[in-house]
Amino acid sequence: MPPSLIAELRAACPNAIVWDEAELATRDPGFDGRNFGASVLVRPRDTQGVAALVRFCAARGLSLVAQGGRTGLAGGAATQPGQVICDLGGLNKIEDIDPSARVAVVQAGTTLGVLQEALAVHGLDPGIDLAARGSATIGGMVSTNAGGIMAFRNGTMRHRVLGLEAVLPDGRIFSDLTRVLKTSAGYDLKHLFVGAEGTLGIVTRVAIRLEPVPGASATALVGVPDAASAQRIVRHFLSSTAARLTAAEILWQRFAAAMQRALGYVPGQLPLEAPCLLVLGLGADSIGAAQAALEDGLAAVWEDAGIIDGLVATSQAQAEAIWRLREETGEIERMHHLPPSFDVSVPGGALDAYVQRIEAGLKKIDPSYAPYVFGHLADGNLHISINTDGPLSHAVHEAIEDVLYEGLNEAGGSFSAEHGVGLEKRDAYERHADPVKQALARSIKEMLDPGNVMNPGKIVSVD
Amino acid sequence: MPPSLIAELRAACPNAIVWDEAELATRDPGFDGRNFGASVLVRPRDTQGVAALVRFCAARGLSLVAQGGRTGLAGGAATQPGQVICDLGGLNKIEDIDPSARVAVVQAGTTLGVLQEALAVHGLDPGIDLAARGSATIGGMVSTNAGGIMAFRNGTMRHRVLGLEAVLPDGRIFSDLTRVLKTSAGYDLKHLFVGAEGTLGIVTRVAIRLEPVPGASATALVGVPDAASAQRIVRHFLSSTAARLTAAEILWQRFAAAMQRALGYVPGQLPLEAPCLLVLGLGADSIGAAQAALEDGLAAVWEDAGIIDGLVATSQAQAEAIWRLREETGEIERMHHLPPSFDVSVPGGALDAYVQRIEAGLKKIDPSYAPYVFGHLADGNLHISINTDGPLSHAVHEAIEDVLYEGLNEAGGSFSAEHGVGLEKRDAYERHADPVKQALARSIKEMLDPGNVMNPGKIVSVD
Repeated sequence: MPPSLIAELRAACPNAIVWDEAELATRDPGFDGRNFGASVLVRPRDTQGVAALVRFCAARGLSLVAQGGRTGLAGGAATQPGQVICDLGGLNKIEDIDPSARVAVVQAGTTLGVLQEALAVHGLDPGIDLAARGSATIGGMVSTNAGGIMAFRNGTMRHRVLGLEAVLPDGRIFSDLTRVLKTSAGYDLKHLFVGAEGTLGIVTRVAIRLEPVPGASATALVGVPDAASAQRIVRHFLSSTAARLTAAEILWQRFAAAMQRALGYVPGQLPLEAPCLLVLGLGADSIGAAQAALEDGLAAVWEDAGIIDGLVATSQAQAEAIWRLREETGEIERMHHLPPSFDVSVPGGALDAYVQRIEAGLKKIDPSYAPYVFGHLADGNLHISINTDGPLSHAVHEAIEDVLYEGLNEAGGSFSAEHGVGLEKRDAYERHADPVKQALARSIKEMLDPGNVMNPGKIVSVD
Repeated sequence: MPPSLIAELRAACPNAIVWDEAELATRDPGFDGRNFGASVLVRPRDTQGVAALVRFCAARGLSLVAQGGRTGLAGGAATQPGQVICDLGGLNKIEDIDPSARVAVVQAGTTLGVLQEALAVHGLDPGIDLAARGSATIGGMVSTNAGGIMAFRNGTMRHRVLGLEAVLPDGRIFSDLTRVLKTSAGYDLKHLFVGAEGTLGIVTRVAIRLEPVPGASATALVGVPDAASAQRIVRHFLSSTAARLTAAEILWQRFAAAMQRALGYVPGQLPLEAPCLLVLGLGADSIGAAQAALEDGLAAVWEDAGIIDGLVATSQAQAEAIWRLREETGEIERMHHLPPSFDVSVPGGALDAYVQRIEAGLKKIDPSYAPYVFGHLADGNLHISINTDGPLSHAVHEAIEDVLYEGLNEAGGSFSAEHGVGLEKRDAYERHADPVKQALARSIKEMLDPGNVMNPGKIVSVD
């Protein structure tokens, strides 16, 4: 990008921070090395600043890629030379918290962790939580329709968004900062921008629905023979009103064993021998009530669910040791270089059959291939990493995708549960998403962004 | 419509029931006399039948209006001579209930009541409830983004829909029968059809997320000085995990007094003297636990919330008497002929100020005007009827709208909370909805329905 263009850019965006290629090369690109492939990064300070940048790029045919915490796992924020990054980090204010109406209005660059902290003093939280909370931003979570561990109860990011402001590809501002849950006042077009990964506009502000946080919580680790057993346990806790189920994470044995080794846990420190491990979180008005509800609930379903063993954490340290098994998934990446990783939603009672099927299918591709499987039991969202170094050849990667995605869409599942499409799942999208849906998506992209300014090449391909 | 065209229609839709004008004149048009203004009604039996009807109409430039239970309150299903009604009553099967995954797949013409009944044996419900449950259909509720009394907990219909199938204006079938909560697999275009009142396509099948029903429930009627006091009570019950708040309805005194008279309640039968009445529903594992949680919760906040009086129902009959006050709103229509009625969402802690402001504003239009106000406290959705006969002149109606809607959109509220836009709120939509949103909505309507076949004149106006 010629220095004169960067000078023009600085002039057009006077309040923005601008990093050129040399500066970008010295900075941390986040979870994806391609994030800083662009020629320039601009960090505006407000919605008007974003709009100025969008108009600048649109007028010159430059393409613009929005970035938040750069923790995306599907390459949705990857960039190339010649592109401009719109970094939302300058829009990081919490504009309003209304505890009585349980609504917050935040700028898109606010991190989930900062918002959680600000809400905690009011006994509230955004109803969504995920491991990357320290860096993931609200705008990025909206743009990928993030899910996380509480989605089974509170929905995904789409269900948390009451209102949204976005800068359109032509620089106009779509302003729908609705703060109420109920509105049936014409097409609810904010949903176009949720999960669109910045291809239809740049989300600048969001009104989020909040949830009251239980006074106390308790954690259990339960060994079960299979996912069906874990589902019976979860059903019991969901149906009971004695306490509030806040987490139901499942770890298949291969993943649990690898994590146990990686974290250096002494064998026997936690009961981790069963074929499947279920991590349960329960909220109640006091710690005693939460622990009692966990113990009573497990006792009530113990026989019927075929529970093998179980432990209700009796200290914060023990609860944290259990959660580290589930959350410190970076350990898998220390065992394998760029292991091929996937993120699917499996519908209904099909989890055990699904895991058996992919175990067998992967072996057919390569007898050494086996999956690490863990995820969000109550909504069927499984994360799967293969025990091999990546990147694989296109053909092998596609063969693995065929095994993992076969019949998933037809059964009502999803080949991308919560990480988005980005670049990684472009092929899968074209091969597995409904053709009528794909055609409509292209029409909408062409209508809203005829110049293909916004994050081109992600999700949909247009000419 | 010439008889030859009707004969052609019968031939094109061989499995459908067809009613001509003469037949329509003998039938009940539902909540809106204009529903049966069309020349012909066609009731297909399945999605392919709907698609055949759509193609027939598209080819001949006939406009098509989808109808479900005909309980809409905004004229969204009103028709005119020359139009064709697509009655979804023939698509009334519950195709699947998966109790373990908590998902049902139903055809669009299924009524809410029938679905509720089928789910009850599994201890589940659709997480949404409203007074017209006996006739309102799932497709109609999707198309108006219905809300009801449990939205504060479970969201509106939009948040209940996991997947959706719709016939597009050109007869193509948009098929997204996702059965999982988490999907981030490209633009989530099903949201275009939710709340679109049949203007972008006809919803034919829906996958709905289900909720476990508490084992037992209890009801209380609480007299409070104002909505702020009621909100403090609700906040307490929402924050506690000892039981599950299932309803929080508010009745302002004028409405409560009118209902008490209309229902012939003996003065003193229920404590109804306070300025505001709060109806609370609480679910728990047993009736005893639910009643105890209500009593304990009210005692805990009694002083802080300034509670005037309260009654926890001790019998089913008493609970029903309380609920009839809230739900038998048809009584207001027996007191006044077509009273002008409104449906707004008021954000945050502004309910008391809002009601005071509209009381004063209405008096300025006519000293005899006063509002009956009731609604869903926990999400700020108020229903308002004026104590006068309708229809009013356009000028007076508009003056009332100005009072009720002034500043609402800017504050993050909504001039249409859960009834839709239809015909009744077309003017309000054009005057109060964000202009960029309106422009986008028109572009989308023109893109998806260039022939303006689907429910023309509702929500958006295109040339």
